[in-house]
Amino acid sequence: MMSTVPHPLDAALALQPLGGDRFAGRTLPEWGNMVGPYGGITAAQLLQAARLHPQCLGEALALTVNFAGAVGDGAFEIEARVMRTTRTTQHWNLVQRQGDVVCSSGSAVFALRRPTWTSPELVMPSVPPAAQVPPARGEPPVQWPRRYEFRFVEGAWPDFRHAREEADSRTLMWVRDEPPRPLDAPALAAIADVFYPRVFRRRGRFTPSGTITLTTYFHADAAALAAQGDRPVLAAARGRRFTLGFFDQSAEIWSDDGLLLASSHQVVYFKD
Amino acid sequence: MMSTVPHPLDAALALQPLGGDRFAGRTLPEWGNMVGPYGGITAAQLLQAARLHPQCLGEALALTVNFAGAVGDGAFEIEARVMRTTRTTQHWNLVQRQGDVVCSSGSAVFALRRPTWTSPELVMPSVPPAAQVPPARGEPPVQWPRRYEFRFVEGAWPDFRHAREEADSRTLMWVRDEPPRPLDAPALAAIADVFYPRVFRRRGRFTPSGTITLTTYFHADAAALAAQGDRPVLAAARGRRFTLGFFDQSAEIWSDDGLLLASSHQVVYFKD
Repeated sequence: MMSTVPHPLDAALALQPLGGDRFAGRTLPEWGNMVGPYGGITAAQLLQAARLHPQCLGEALALTVNFAGAVGDGAFEIEARVMRTTRTTQHWNLVQRQGDVVCSSGSAVFALRRPTWTSPELVMPSVPPAAQVPPARGEPPVQWPRRYEFRFVEGAWPDFRHAREEADSRTLMWVRDEPPRPLDAPALAAIADVFYPRVFRRRGRFTPSGTITLTTYFHADAAALAAQGDRPVLAAARGRRFTLGFFDQSAEIWSDDGLLLASSHQVVYFKD
Repeated sequence: MMSTVPHPLDAALALQPLGGDRFAGRTLPEWGNMVGPYGGITAAQLLQAARLHPQCLGEALALTVNFAGAVGDGAFEIEARVMRTTRTTQHWNLVQRQGDVVCSSGSAVFALRRPTWTSPELVMPSVPPAAQVPPARGEPPVQWPRRYEFRFVEGAWPDFRHAREEADSRTLMWVRDEPPRPLDAPALAAIADVFYPRVFRRRGRFTPSGTITLTTYFHADAAALAAQGDRPVLAAARGRRFTLGFFDQSAEIWSDDGLLLASSHQVVYFKD
């Protein structure tokens, strides 16, 4: 008999509807971070709960996830509630719980897209094509980076044995799911968190840190994401200010033909 | 007898606790936009509800507001609910309603800040001091811009009689409350939305548009905001991509001595 093993991202997205606004999920060791799962997979799961909801209309436009505490190994529940549906947008409230404890909470906006005047403004950085950039090698100390293929153009993981302080925190890389998987909104929501904390690069040493809040804006419709297929996307990130235990970082995710697919912003906690 | 008229921002922030998580507010004509109030004042009011809540701990770190529909003239209610409090952060769910209708919803994260390694990364644009830039003159067609003094360095309001398409949507300006008022987190939350829609500048013509979602990150503690006093802050904004009825814009707000006080991001709906 043949058995089909689902892609690790699809396994994570296989939430079980419990009726009403409730969906059941489980953490998967494949997505493990230092404590609890990778924030990007939690973001993708919250978005997925709205997508699976029978009332869902339109496509993902914006997603905000506030990470309150690590998700413990095992079962969790997501509540996805429509706050209001208008002619163009649908507004969601999202809460992830284990028992009575809120692990994460946030919101999503879905929208009906329609043809309008269109124009880029930000231009994709000029980089060699993915095929000309070697994939990063190494044995990451946690599981989730093994779910991605990274091809760093600039700002690879610092080697803390030799690293020094850097004046800027920029990372520029080609990245795709590993194994390859066609791009869709949950996959993009997960990729938006794929950057190691910018403080690692600035300080040149390991600094305990964790994302507190993550907001991702989706600039592409389902057809444009499908057109990207499973080819690497270009991902760029940098921080703005590091102070008093927190910093922000912003990211852009580009299709390989130069369209901005998503922009994403986060605030990260760090400890001296 | 002397009568003291509160500052228009303080009048808007004077929410009445109704017990529990509920706070009552009213729209004020001074903050009127084309339809309903200015989004920035709604954002400030949602943040204020959390600040007024007896359980509130720490200072504003992040605020996300999703605008579902215009707030009608008159009374509204804000529900501000603590989702979880950790050692460092407090997570809030925020909903603004008129009757049973959700006008806006979102979330906030408050945090305890403490001294750590600190470093800027983004550098304040080089501009003449506010005193050397003349305030914008004019009779805005809506009320809320009269609550601010604008000194445009670049990207002033387009004059649609003569405007043409522009390749970039950047605005750079000194801005402060009018009349002057000491800066605090709600004032900064309001200022974060102070930019006219970037599509006006790109297209050189009036384009019906409205903010769908707004996220602001606060990089300064209360002491740093107080130190800014009522002097103008430098505000910069630009868009990334305009397509299928939506665009995003990101902004930075700087103190006049070059510290990044806030970064802010939004997605805006527009109509051809």
